[in-house]
Amino acid sequence: MQRHGDDDDDDDPMQAINNHDKVYGKTFLVHDLSGSLLPELEERGAMRRNDYYIPVSGEEKAADFGNTKDGGVSQYSKYDSIPLNSLKSDEAASGPKQGPTFQDGQRRVDYVLTYHVQKPQSVCRKTSRFADYHILRSLRRSLSMMRSGDTPPSKEDPEIAAHKHRLDYHEDDKRFRQTEFEDNLREMGLELEKDEGNKIPGIGFLKIHAPWNVLCREAEFMKLKLPTKKVYEVKQGSNVVERINLFIHKVTAPLHPKVEPNRPQNVKHLSHPFSREKQHLFDLSDRESFFDSKTRASIVYEVLKRTRCTKAKYTMGITSLLGNGVYTAAYPLHDGDVDGMGAEANDRKILYEEWASYSVFYKYQPIGLIRKYFGEKIGLYFAWLGVYTQMLIPAAIVGVIVFLYGCATVDNDIPSMEICDPRNNITMCPLCDRACSYWKLKTACGTARASHLFDNPATVFFSIFMALWATMFMEHWKRRQMRLNYIWDLTGFEEEEQAHKDHHRAEYEIQVMQKTLKKQDMYPKDKKVKLTCTDRAPAYMMGLFLMLFMIGVTFAVVFGVILYRISIKAALHMSSNPTARSNIRATVKGTAAVINLVIIIIMDEVYGAVARWLTVLEVPKTDKSFEERLIIKTFVLKFANAFSPIVYLAFFRGRMVGRPGDYVYVIGSYRMEECAHAGCLMELCIQLCITMLGKQLIQNNLFEIGIPKIKKLIRRRKSEMDSQQQEDYNMTLQRHEKDHFLGPFVGLSPEYMEMIIQFGMVTLFVASFPLAPLFALLNNIIEIRLDAKKFVTEVRRPIAARAKDIGIWYNLLRGLSKVAVIVNAFVISFTSDFIPRLVYQYMYSPDGSMHGFVNHTLSYFNVSDFKPGTAPLQPMHLGYEVQICRYKDYRETLWSNTPYDLSKEFWAILACRLAFVIVFQNVVMLMSDFVDWLIPDIPKDISLQIHKEKILMVELFMKEEEGKKLLRDNHTNQSPFQPRSRPASHTPSNC
Amino acid sequence: MQRHGDDDDDDDPMQAINNHDKVYGKTFLVHDLSGSLLPELEERGAMRRNDYYIPVSGEEKAADFGNTKDGGVSQYSKYDSIPLNSLKSDEAASGPKQGPTFQDGQRRVDYVLTYHVQKPQSVCRKTSRFADYHILRSLRRSLSMMRSGDTPPSKEDPEIAAHKHRLDYHEDDKRFRQTEFEDNLREMGLELEKDEGNKIPGIGFLKIHAPWNVLCREAEFMKLKLPTKKVYEVKQGSNVVERINLFIHKVTAPLHPKVEPNRPQNVKHLSHPFSREKQHLFDLSDRESFFDSKTRASIVYEVLKRTRCTKAKYTMGITSLLGNGVYTAAYPLHDGDVDGMGAEANDRKILYEEWASYSVFYKYQPIGLIRKYFGEKIGLYFAWLGVYTQMLIPAAIVGVIVFLYGCATVDNDIPSMEICDPRNNITMCPLCDRACSYWKLKTACGTARASHLFDNPATVFFSIFMALWATMFMEHWKRRQMRLNYIWDLTGFEEEEQAHKDHHRAEYEIQVMQKTLKKQDMYPKDKKVKLTCTDRAPAYMMGLFLMLFMIGVTFAVVFGVILYRISIKAALHMSSNPTARSNIRATVKGTAAVINLVIIIIMDEVYGAVARWLTVLEVPKTDKSFEERLIIKTFVLKFANAFSPIVYLAFFRGRMVGRPGDYVYVIGSYRMEECAHAGCLMELCIQLCITMLGKQLIQNNLFEIGIPKIKKLIRRRKSEMDSQQQEDYNMTLQRHEKDHFLGPFVGLSPEYMEMIIQFGMVTLFVASFPLAPLFALLNNIIEIRLDAKKFVTEVRRPIAARAKDIGIWYNLLRGLSKVAVIVNAFVISFTSDFIPRLVYQYMYSPDGSMHGFVNHTLSYFNVSDFKPGTAPLQPMHLGYEVQICRYKDYRETLWSNTPYDLSKEFWAILACRLAFVIVFQNVVMLMSDFVDWLIPDIPKDISLQIHKEKILMVELFMKEEEGKKLLRDNHTNQSPFQPRSRPASHTPSNC
Repeated sequence: MQRHGDDDDDDDPMQAINNHDKVYGKTFLVHDLSGSLLPELEERGAMRRNDYYIPVSGEEKAADFGNTKDGGVSQYSKYDSIPLNSLKSDEAASGPKQGPTFQDGQRRVDYVLTYHVQKPQSVCRKTSRFADYHILRSLRRSLSMMRSGDTPPSKEDPEIAAHKHRLDYHEDDKRFRQTEFEDNLREMGLELEKDEGNKIPGIGFLKIHAPWNVLCREAEFMKLKLPTKKVYEVKQGSNVVERINLFIHKVTAPLHPKVEPNRPQNVKHLSHPFSREKQHLFDLSDRESFFDSKTRASIVYEVLKRTRCTKAKYTMGITSLLGNGVYTAAYPLHDGDVDGMGAEANDRKILYEEWASYSVFYKYQPIGLIRKYFGEKIGLYFAWLGVYTQMLIPAAIVGVIVFLYGCATVDNDIPSMEICDPRNNITMCPLCDRACSYWKLKTACGTARASHLFDNPATVFFSIFMALWATMFMEHWKRRQMRLNYIWDLTGFEEEEQAHKDHHRAEYEIQVMQKTLKKQDMYPKDKKVKLTCTDRAPAYMMGLFLMLFMIGVTFAVVFGVILYRISIKAALHMSSNPTARSNIRATVKGTAAVINLVIIIIMDEVYGAVARWLTVLEVPKTDKSFEERLIIKTFVLKFANAFSPIVYLAFFRGRMVGRPGDYVYVIGSYRMEECAHAGCLMELCIQLCITMLGKQLIQNNLFEIGIPKIKKLIRRRKSEMDSQQQEDYNMTLQRHEKDHFLGPFVGLSPEYMEMIIQFGMVTLFVASFPLAPLFALLNNIIEIRLDAKKFVTEVRRPIAARAKDIGIWYNLLRGLSKVAVIVNAFVISFTSDFIPRLVYQYMYSPDGSMHGFVNHTLSYFNVSDFKPGTAPLQPMHLGYEVQICRYKDYRETLWSNTPYDLSKEFWAILACRLAFVIVFQNVVMLMSDFVDWLIPDIPKDISLQIHKEKILMVELFMKEEEGKKLLRDNHTNQSPFQPRSRPASHTPSNC
Repeated sequence: MQRHGDDDDDDDPMQAINNHDKVYGKTFLVHDLSGSLLPELEERGAMRRNDYYIPVSGEEKAADFGNTKDGGVSQYSKYDSIPLNSLKSDEAASGPKQGPTFQDGQRRVDYVLTYHVQKPQSVCRKTSRFADYHILRSLRRSLSMMRSGDTPPSKEDPEIAAHKHRLDYHEDDKRFRQTEFEDNLREMGLELEKDEGNKIPGIGFLKIHAPWNVLCREAEFMKLKLPTKKVYEVKQGSNVVERINLFIHKVTAPLHPKVEPNRPQNVKHLSHPFSREKQHLFDLSDRESFFDSKTRASIVYEVLKRTRCTKAKYTMGITSLLGNGVYTAAYPLHDGDVDGMGAEANDRKILYEEWASYSVFYKYQPIGLIRKYFGEKIGLYFAWLGVYTQMLIPAAIVGVIVFLYGCATVDNDIPSMEICDPRNNITMCPLCDRACSYWKLKTACGTARASHLFDNPATVFFSIFMALWATMFMEHWKRRQMRLNYIWDLTGFEEEEQAHKDHHRAEYEIQVMQKTLKKQDMYPKDKKVKLTCTDRAPAYMMGLFLMLFMIGVTFAVVFGVILYRISIKAALHMSSNPTARSNIRATVKGTAAVINLVIIIIMDEVYGAVARWLTVLEVPKTDKSFEERLIIKTFVLKFANAFSPIVYLAFFRGRMVGRPGDYVYVIGSYRMEECAHAGCLMELCIQLCITMLGKQLIQNNLFEIGIPKIKKLIRRRKSEMDSQQQEDYNMTLQRHEKDHFLGPFVGLSPEYMEMIIQFGMVTLFVASFPLAPLFALLNNIIEIRLDAKKFVTEVRRPIAARAKDIGIWYNLLRGLSKVAVIVNAFVISFTSDFIPRLVYQYMYSPDGSMHGFVNHTLSYFNVSDFKPGTAPLQPMHLGYEVQICRYKDYRETLWSNTPYDLSKEFWAILACRLAFVIVFQNVVMLMSDFVDWLIPDIPKDISLQIHKEKILMVELFMKEEEGKKLLRDNHTNQSPFQPRSRPASHTPSNC
């Protein structure tokens, strides 16, 4: 619709030249492919640049327009663009046709920088000498605005207003830097267009286009592997394998998203790092689509990162410029609208329909398209999430089977039968001092039967299965990753990642500046200042201290919940209300678990903020290092938060109880909690279930769906338009303006973190809760589409980052699956009754059956040994006088020499438990390592194909070689002593 | 000395052309660097080839000469070369001046192929249709000759003579293939020279030279990273670090080998993958030395691997040709003599003097030079061996300290004091049935004191230390490897390794041929035949079976030694000779350990052969796969062999003994061995010591020094010359003839394997033998120089293989160091008395000291409970009647309800032992992982430098870009529409 506020007199010559190019371009392309076209264009480009360059008139004019911003939007949009090309404006009303372009409708917008348009009085004062600390202060302020996630508010801050005069200098400096930066960008060959008089007041847009020669150059530097003309057939192995694959493909056809309809599956273009000298290898017939939009954006970003402002006092790269508010945001543009009716088919729309929708939840993800649109890093996240979800299916199925096995065998379980049997008239010792009285074991019948659901031999099998499952998952993912690397032509790409490292973070540069300023007096100026450990020591100490404190808080919370449970239980026991007393256990367990859940969710957010704050304090040098430090901190805190109540339940509860007559007390008179008769497994299970379900439901629904909605609502409120107006207004917006309203992309870490915690839930305590994989599966099916929606519709398009793997997350997963083995070993041997049962059956049982097991686990207590004041107040509660009560422990009998001492059975069972841990841990680890070793990391067909590609490549080069030699020979024959010029026929240099 | 038997009329034109080239070459190099020279040469080369090519006269003549071989050596060497250039022969008498060259003295010999020169009657019959099975038979025969390690004997085999007629065909076929192969090599651009009439009868040499253009081309294909002209300064970090480094360097100066005297240490050439298009980047002023000899050889090898004979029925590559005896050997040449007096300084000589000599044992190795001469793979082996040896120094020191601590505290050890105290009059139960009698505990005093040397709390510390040491070693090696990768410009080299994979082994190809022949009737011919699992199944089954059998044999041997020990002990006990009886223990232990050692050494060789045989049976596809399979098999067998006696001693001995009155018997009436009173640790220690020392001494001295000497002697005997004659004869030999007499290079596997087994000894049972690192250190200091001597003087020069890491060996090391943790945990908790002592001290001791420990470990036995016929024959041996004797075990007392049952103490101690294992294993593993995580794999300075290099490279290219653009602009201005030719000034194409 072309109603931009345009700095027209600058752009006109540009456009003219471009039209000129177009005409010439076509002529040349017909006549001559050997590449005389581009240098010429470039040359003229350079001339143009020189003409264009000396007066910075564009900025001046723009600043003038910026002044009129209070006058509303429509005023100068008409003033500007209607006279220019009113014919086009109707045509383009439904949105730009083939991606967003410059005014000329030809050059794609590959990237957008936004900046504040300020008051006009401070035009072009090219001074930059002013108090250094003031820069720093304002830098920091704008930085903290950045931090808050969105662009700084355009309203005037009272604090800022106070520093009006200084700010003028500051604005000047910004403008000066902008000018320099843009000059440098043009120097690098990029083409720029400014758009200040647009619909969004106060914001200027700098649209960046990368012309063909820049794209080629950067692609070469970045060693981008691109498809060559050479096509070869991918063989699927032998006939049988091929047929099976075809069959599988047919069967699963409805599960495949409809994104690439007619692509032949078994041919692949040979890829080669792009090189202008080898241009003839590549199919350059369609230059528009040779580099796709994400590649173009990442190329521009690469150039931006390399470009630096050096004229002012401190060298600044794009990150610093963004951090300092010279620019407010930098983003590439989305391909098009997702839901406009007239919108043409574009990748974003296809993704929206075939991926980011709950209605396609059963389908595979279109990973290829995701990668094409968002780049490899995000592609890998979704591929990983997909693999994880897929792998959860068998785990969920086996988990359900194990659970059903528990249900089916609950009636055959001899120990619970014995507990429920009214003939076994066993009197148990009271569960609390004074208030509680003796009780009959058979009242624990329900708990015992419920425990069996989760504590049966199948659980042991299941936790071995899950340990191997985790290994299989890691292996499967490694292979999938390798396959994607191959398909995405990332094989051989390795080191480029390190290049990303070195772009310093804005905060780091500010710190360095500050340090430089301080040190200037002491040291000669040329010495390079770095942040050393001593600079960071306070932050490190602070970090360590706060981390420990936070973990302490977590433990305190757990302990608080324990106290809550103990005191509530005692209170309820004392209450005379019979219904309250009968529901004691359920009430206490339920409320405690819910309290835990609520605290976990609240603390989760707190810890996230603390970790980020601590990481900022440490001032890491690069974004990568920042990310890693943040991830580790967040991981430690969130993990401790999510798992400490569970770990307490699994390993500590009921262990430090003492025995009747010699109980362990905490804080005065609170007796430590005991487990229910059939072990703590049941409670662990309840806690896990509530934590997992609650966390997922609340975090997904509330935080991931609810809050963005509310934010949107608030934003809409602020703009003070009703929905119809809003819609109309939206329709008239340009792509870069629409994208500006979207939230910034904040990285994949939160998504990964959520999944890792879930993975921990699924693997760490799977021995106690076999349904965990099922819950995880259900959650993930929703999670995938939720994340997809977010990326497609709610955030700005992220810059495509190349990545071969998922980085640190893989290590965390690996670490978790290792820890899971030992945790499960302990859960099975110590929390469950598995080992005592086995030991009883094979060492003590008179007839080799489980009969008598319950009796065997109970020790005797003489009620006369109660300490004074702890005996029950109502000793006759059961209707008879109790002489000897029973309690669950292995202790010497009353008639032995040392009554109440730990018995030989205790030590024997302990030894067996420990032996089981050792055997379990080492066998499972060995099996995992074996599986790891057995499954090659690189799928065989992929390694064969990589090899084949390499041979084809050498063949191709050899053939070329031959051709060259022939040509050269001919040449030499004609003029044997003339300096040889390269045979041009083979290398048409289009760049 | 140029007295070759030369096929002169073929070589004359070649030489002429080369002289011609030389003259022209110089002229051109002055006038014109833009590369008009080479294409011309090439072109003429192509013409020459065509002239040269149609009649295969060279081979015919050569065959004629071959006929006269009985006439001795001197005859035709005179006949040939004296008339050619008798002037040169004096000059060159002391050996070729600058490496071995062709006849013309100009072109270097980069590679040599040898073949048999046969009887002349079968000249040039170009038939190749004969019975297929006959080829296969003869192929296999020649293959099995190959296998035997040396070239096939030139004498006539009676079996071969019987197939005279068929062999003629065979020889024809060989000749035919040779011709084709050589044609193909010339096609690829290599230059060849034959040398058949030389001093070694029956052997023909094909000398290969790679001309400049081939070197360039292949270097580009192989993506060899080569130093560019661009030099940059390597910064050593801050001033302080730099000064420290300088200081360290100065202090250690005498430890550095004198190989690169005046190279500036802090500048480095920027490296870039060689590309002819970017030739201007490289310093090509000295073409002779731009590619060093090992690079030239590996380039030729690369071409050889790619070249295939396709005309005959079966396509054959160089490996098949070698396997089938078409060629008998293929090797690059050494640089020169090591000990000739007049020999000029060459890399080999420097290596011999500064590295392969015992007199420099205290120096660092010249790794850079080793790599330059032998290539990266061998360089990495020696670097690894160096790092390992270096890391052994602290381990040895700590080990000695721990041992000394044991020595120092032996007098303060309460348990051994109690044993030695005559006042503790403890009567022990007899050690064998009937023959032995009761004995006093204080006779075990010596053993108890000796045990303390190796079984004290310091040992626990030491095994934790060694577990961390192993991790540190792995980490240190990873860093060193990374550093070497950087220094050797291997960063970025990654995939090339896989290319090596695909060259099929000759055996594999023969098998495939055979299968093809069989299947021809059934299937259409074009279907590609592969060896599938079903083809290999018998071999796999066989392998599995034999491996299990061999491991069974190992166990049987161990069991045999046990029986030997038991029976000898019983026999000695029964003998009446008092001196024999007093030395019983020492004698038995000593002889048993020696027997074990001898068996281990013998079986080691057997197992090596078996593993190789099994791997050959499996017919692996590629050399790499062959090597891996062989390594795994050898490792399993040799490891089982070396460690099974030790494992028995550590974990099984003394466990299945039973108790007095209820002993465990094996094979009739042999009672299982008990340990000495202070545990089996002492015996484990003796066994380890003897195995380690003996293995190293015998294997090093006998196998690595003795046998090669003997072989040489035998070879000399065979040649029937006295030493003076021999020496004179040696002097007259050419380089390629001399090298032919050296043994073939058989790979690094045996060297690595030896070291891995040693590493196992050092880490696995280090808890029981803290001196192991010391012994290993002493051995390795010798081992390095021994291996060095072997590589420099005794074997042919290996083909330089590029490698980034030590491959499978790293994984084995990792695996070992993981296993070591658990093994040491078990040794400490079960084999040593560490846990029982701790438990006694903290749970049972009345006063918290160790007093009473010995009494606590001994149970009571009522002699009346002896089974009939097992009571001692001489019950009054001690001079009094014994009612109750003691034995070492935790069992219920006589007066309990269940006497002789395992007691509560037993279970408690068992639980503690197991808990210790769990804690030790997990803590050490955690610490290892932590160390692993803490130490970055890539040293920081290296990663900084890699990054810096990358930036410099981009800068370089950008600058070039600018230059190009300027030039192009100028060009376009002059003639705007003319097809652009590349600016030649930037890319002088010398290739």
